[in-house]
Amino acid sequence: MEATFNRRHLLGIRELSAEEITHLLDTAENFREVSKRQIKKVPALRGRTVINLFFEPSTRTRTSFEIAAKRLSADAVNVSVSTSSVSKGETLLDTARNLEAMAPDCIVIRHSMAGAPQHLARMTNAPIVNAGDGAHEHPTQALLDALTIREYKGRIQGLNVAIVGDILHSRVARSNIYLLTKLGATVSVGGPGTLVPDDFAELVESGLRIEKHFEDAIEGADVVMILRIQRERQDAAFFPSMREYAVHYGLQPRHLDRAAPDAIVMHPGPMNRGVEISSEIADGSRSLILDQVTNGVAVRMAVLYLLAGGSHTESADEDATTQKQAAAERKRTPIKTHRR
Amino acid sequence: MEATFNRRHLLGIRELSAEEITHLLDTAENFREVSKRQIKKVPALRGRTVINLFFEPSTRTRTSFEIAAKRLSADAVNVSVSTSSVSKGETLLDTARNLEAMAPDCIVIRHSMAGAPQHLARMTNAPIVNAGDGAHEHPTQALLDALTIREYKGRIQGLNVAIVGDILHSRVARSNIYLLTKLGATVSVGGPGTLVPDDFAELVESGLRIEKHFEDAIEGADVVMILRIQRERQDAAFFPSMREYAVHYGLQPRHLDRAAPDAIVMHPGPMNRGVEISSEIADGSRSLILDQVTNGVAVRMAVLYLLAGGSHTESADEDATTQKQAAAERKRTPIKTHRR
Amino acid sequence: MEATFNRRHLLGIRELSAEEITHLLDTAENFREVSKRQIKKVPALRGRTVINLFFEPSTRTRTSFEIAAKRLSADAVNVSVSTSSVSKGETLLDTARNLEAMAPDCIVIRHSMAGAPQHLARMTNAPIVNAGDGAHEHPTQALLDALTIREYKGRIQGLNVAIVGDILHSRVARSNIYLLTKLGATVSVGGPGTLVPDDFAELVESGLRIEKHFEDAIEGADVVMILRIQRERQDAAFFPSMREYAVHYGLQPRHLDRAAPDAIVMHPGPMNRGVEISSEIADGSRSLILDQVTNGVAVRMAVLYLLAGGSHTESADEDATTQKQAAAERKRTPIKTHRR
Repeated sequence: MEATFNRRHLLGIRELSAEEITHLLDTAENFREVSKRQIKKVPALRGRTVINLFFEPSTRTRTSFEIAAKRLSADAVNVSVSTSSVSKGETLLDTARNLEAMAPDCIVIRHSMAGAPQHLARMTNAPIVNAGDGAHEHPTQALLDALTIREYKGRIQGLNVAIVGDILHSRVARSNIYLLTKLGATVSVGGPGTLVPDDFAELVESGLRIEKHFEDAIEGADVVMILRIQRERQDAAFFPSMREYAVHYGLQPRHLDRAAPDAIVMHPGPMNRGVEISSEIADGSRSLILDQVTNGVAVRMAVLYLLAGGSHTESADEDATTQKQAAAERKRTPIKTHRR
Repeated sequence: MEATFNRRHLLGIRELSAEEITHLLDTAENFREVSKRQIKKVPALRGRTVINLFFEPSTRTRTSFEIAAKRLSADAVNVSVSTSSVSKGETLLDTARNLEAMAPDCIVIRHSMAGAPQHLARMTNAPIVNAGDGAHEHPTQALLDALTIREYKGRIQGLNVAIVGDILHSRVARSNIYLLTKLGATVSVGGPGTLVPDDFAELVESGLRIEKHFEDAIEGADVVMILRIQRERQDAAFFPSMREYAVHYGLQPRHLDRAAPDAIVMHPGPMNRGVEISSEIADGSRSLILDQVTNGVAVRMAVLYLLAGGSHTESADEDATTQKQAAAERKRTPIKTHRR
Repeated sequence: MEATFNRRHLLGIRELSAEEITHLLDTAENFREVSKRQIKKVPALRGRTVINLFFEPSTRTRTSFEIAAKRLSADAVNVSVSTSSVSKGETLLDTARNLEAMAPDCIVIRHSMAGAPQHLARMTNAPIVNAGDGAHEHPTQALLDALTIREYKGRIQGLNVAIVGDILHSRVARSNIYLLTKLGATVSVGGPGTLVPDDFAELVESGLRIEKHFEDAIEGADVVMILRIQRERQDAAFFPSMREYAVHYGLQPRHLDRAAPDAIVMHPGPMNRGVEISSEIADGSRSLILDQVTNGVAVRMAVLYLLAGGSHTESADEDATTQKQAAAERKRTPIKTHRR
């Protein structure tokens, strides 16, 4: 079977096949080399427009997408919308449709509301990339994590991956769990009891192990992913304080003794040093945290290239064709008495 | 008479001739095609610098100008200045002169103060584009509206255009009234009684009809332009509440029964759905709201091309020459004892 | 001796030799011409990425660096971080290391903390440009000031330069004092007594004159540099009010009577008109304030070209090689069992 990627959007990992994920990773691997050159630019997306539509502040992800777009020679346009101003004015859909009317080749969206990118993908024609939606998915993060694991372990199939921390609020965890189980890894999650969501039951059939004590999740792990405590989402009191969290759940070097001897450590950033991760681990020899960032640019180049490159429209992909027909029918057909 | 555009600035519609407006629209029509290509880029402004100097937040207009500049291959630089920080520091003129000293080919300015772009045009040498100044003018909005009408109606001459809503606070209304009457349309305005400005009396001679009831303005209209209720400018209590406004002045499908059978509907955005416009109309078959946005990029490409393209400096335009001489005289002639 | 510049970073003027400063100024002089062309662009940094990492708001300096990068054909990426958000999250070093992992060719940093750029230069591998750090240094400002003096006076050697105002809080004063004394000028500083820092004692040996009355500093000056009163840094009550400052220390035309007949006047901007400088002087024939801004783009083009151009890596510069080795040793050497 020939690897290919014919989707119009990248909304989540859940709906992707193992083949599609592998094709994305292979494409990213090819682009990784571009950022190592002195002239870090390829003409692939010259004359294409990529809009970064961010409803949540994000230095790292927005910068990564912007650099990815520019290294592909695309025009990158940043649109930051504070949610407060949106609440006073137009709807999310109207904002997106207006940007769509400016003929972008891709809209990258981050929104605090789970499902926002899916909503836009249904209601507009522009290719949509989900750059994080609420506690739902963050597909490019999972892809860059997988690219990093593949780089250092040579494979994903058969690995034991532990994901520890604030699982409940983590779109990073969710996207990673989908991706890693699809590619044949065994995933164990562990965190403060209250923070593991109930709806992961279905994933247990796919091999997900849920541990009450995060130390048990780490047992024998080849990869340890530490999640960020998302202070800004801690509206309810899941635990008394950051200090309390650090004492009971912060990853310390002794915890890694239970992992495989050559285990690697990852964190999606930004890190709360001394809270969910100790500096000994963050700066230690097992840490691949900065490699993840480097791979992030390569993954986003691959995603933008595949979605905004235009080549997928030439394929005989039925799904894409169906989607386009549906989109065309949704389009208003205004009265035209004259078009010059 | 050969169509041409020899001005250094685009400050408002009021001072333009019908020929100049038509030349701008014809140029925009040529650029519209660029955004439909896969490679949406022409080299017209390569190596030119366009500064977007926005003293009011604006997602849509800033993005439209930025995309227009980039599709012309210009370097676009965004400068957002919150009015609060300005009040503590340097004057508007000093800010503009500093940017001018960096040799931009065009400065696009939005400011809450009516007359700000005119002030800068008098006091600096850089070509200035007014992207909205207080309740005064918003010339590129009127041009994109006209381009949209021409696209769907084939002409402007002889059309009946109704403009309904918050006329008093609307730079969009003002620029459109100037443009449409210059090109031979009959314009009727209607809105809440308190919101029609007194100084439109002079325009009545040019054919402007002022109606007390907005339904009367719509009577027989070929084009219905609905204005945005500008909540942020409602410092005084012109009407009790948004709800009140929606009930009495919000455009409903039944109101369009009085318009021409093939009437088109426009709105400058962002829309307050359920306030000044019902969703049935906004999403209905007569609505050209997204076409306006698409045409906005084409109009701004035309404006930037004509002002920053440099070709107009080769013309024997007396007005431009006079302006340049005046500007040169305004320039300080500092003591120079040596220039390497 | 051949002029050259082999440093990886531009952190301050203090550590530069007169030859290095002169080489930077000569390079800037060559780039000044680019901004006078119709096509203001050279391909020198095509495919390079320049990140502007600003922890303090700055319209002018950020815009100047952005325009400089774009006129060199580099990709410019702006990252604005409000200090408040940083305090909640990751460390400055983690922010910088993350950006470094995206393979920029240069990081331009402004930070309210003196020493921040030096810290990053020690701990990361990316070339760092200091765009102003607390009250410490602002090297590109001193370079653009020197370029402007050289343009109008033909030399720096032997000139009398007066720097008047809020010396204590001024990174501009500090960088200028280092630069001007290195190039052989005689520098006199004067300002409100409380605002001259104690640690300038060592500079007195290099020829720095400290005057109690700012009028005495101006005596016979060929160049008068007026510093900006930094309202935002006036946390302690150095003087009762802006009005008080204006009356006692604001530069008025009569003060210039004591300067040389052909003295020139400079100000780093943004100006507080009517406070530290009267409008008569700011707009007068001696003022080179806007020439400074123009030269700022040229100086930043030179700095970015020399640091991000890559040519310095080809040199046999021992210092750079040593720095690179040290950096390589600092790098974590993670366990790699497989690299595809």
